[in-house]
Amino acid sequence: MTSNDSLNQLGRMLESRKGGDPESSYTARLLHKGPDAFLKKIGEEATELVMACKDADHGGQSADLKAKIVYETADLWFHSMVALTHYGLSPQDVIAELDKRVGTSGLEEKASRKAQIREVTESKGIKP
Amino acid sequence: MTSNDSLNQLGRMLESRKGGDPESSYTARLLHKGPDAFLKKIGEEATELVMACKDADHGGQSADLKAKIVYETADLWFHSMVALTHYGLSPQDVIAELDKRVGTSGLEEKASRKAQIREVTESKGIKP
Amino acid sequence: MTSNDSLNQLGRMLESRKGGDPESSYTARLLHKGPDAFLKKIGEEATELVMACKDADHGGQSADLKAKIVYETADLWFHSMVALTHYGLSPQDVIAELDKRVGTSGLEEKASRKAQIREVTESKGIKP
Amino acid sequence: MTSNDSLNQLGRMLESRKGGDPESSYTARLLHKGPDAFLKKIGEEATELVMACKDADHGGQSADLKAKIVYETADLWFHSMVALTHYGLSPQDVIAELDKRVGTSGLEEKASRKAQIREVTESKGIKP
Repeated sequence: MTSNDSLNQLGRMLESRKGGDPESSYTARLLHKGPDAFLKKIGEEATELVMACKDADHGGQSADLKAKIVYETADLWFHSMVALTHYGLSPQDVIAELDKRVGTSGLEEKASRKAQIREVTESKGIKP
Repeated sequence: MTSNDSLNQLGRMLESRKGGDPESSYTARLLHKGPDAFLKKIGEEATELVMACKDADHGGQSADLKAKIVYETADLWFHSMVALTHYGLSPQDVIAELDKRVGTSGLEEKASRKAQIREVTESKGIKP
Repeated sequence: MTSNDSLNQLGRMLESRKGGDPESSYTARLLHKGPDAFLKKIGEEATELVMACKDADHGGQSADLKAKIVYETADLWFHSMVALTHYGLSPQDVIAELDKRVGTSGLEEKASRKAQIREVTESKGIKP
Repeated sequence: MTSNDSLNQLGRMLESRKGGDPESSYTARLLHKGPDAFLKKIGEEATELVMACKDADHGGQSADLKAKIVYETADLWFHSMVALTHYGLSPQDVIAELDKRVGTSGLEEKASRKAQIREVTESKGIKP
């Protein structure tokens, strides 16, 4: 199965939880509670991913520490997909956006140009 | 793009930037600067995603506001993939973890059980 | 400095930057750019504080690593004070809230009760 | 009571929880669980503060929405003070750092210079 298939399958499953009994599943419960519930999780999971990465940096990147990074990234992507579901969006939309960036001009160049523009813009706001 | 394996293609591209000239691309520069540079971005992009979602909540979920959510999610996934690359991991590892959760017993039940275990464990630490 | 009311003094200084020339100071620039600019910084500085703490955990808590924690906490408090300023609030409001929590019944008990209530409430949403 | 007195009183109370019975108080429990427990809270509370600010932006900054901002800032400062306590630091260290920034040359100029240096440094890494 391709990465697209996997994410889309998960996206369809999340979609199917919309309006479901909050008692029946973790996703149905998050969607029922509303945005603040899953947005808070995005901040929390991002922090947990950062902590797992710092542990790996300092701990010699053992298999266990790497598995923790994978686990936390999965948690972060999962909760951001719950958000997408709430707003009527799907993983496919994010994949399409990422595809665009890897397109003709190259993600790298695009991101590089974007960073340059941002830095130039910001520095304009600052007295030399 | 015609690929149906977008994340893995992006993962290979990020991998190819490892050790590259920091002047040549945004990713090579992030990887060259080291963990703190891209981990900080994960916290920042998570916050930007949360802000975009709150704007959509309050702004009637217009097409523009939804596009912003997609854009910020792509930024968040992109920077977490840069982290994966640094630690010798790939998007496929995360996809495999997500696939496992959608497996036999169901992501929902698994997450639900995990949440129950966490809450039970936490409540044990608290006096009634 | 001899003042024993540091946060309030800083609060008044931030207040004085409202509406000031964005070219003249970092705070005036942040306030001029609007909420997204300083809210993003809160997420970023929180992440930087977490990273500094992880470095101290793993690095034997040297004087340098501890100084980094102090520095990042100051950055986090500073940017949250910029937010307070934008919303017509002051550090004194936060101090008053913290004072209340250390009051008669004790912060500890209050927080403990709050945590209990939260956990009990959450566990109600979960099937045994 | 000055802001310094309040924070220092809270700092002493947090200090007194070190090594205390985890069952007896929320702080003792957090300190007993170790860094990951309270660092995760810093990320979570920062996100909650950002959400409260976005609600105030969109909701006309009512008294209730402003009270929420104060409450979430207090939570964020409280949990960062728990971190300070763990690392043998105190609110006084952060106050001293903030005082330094408001000193002779002015916080504004210092922060402004710092931002300029950062932007100049970053832009050096980018091809024109």
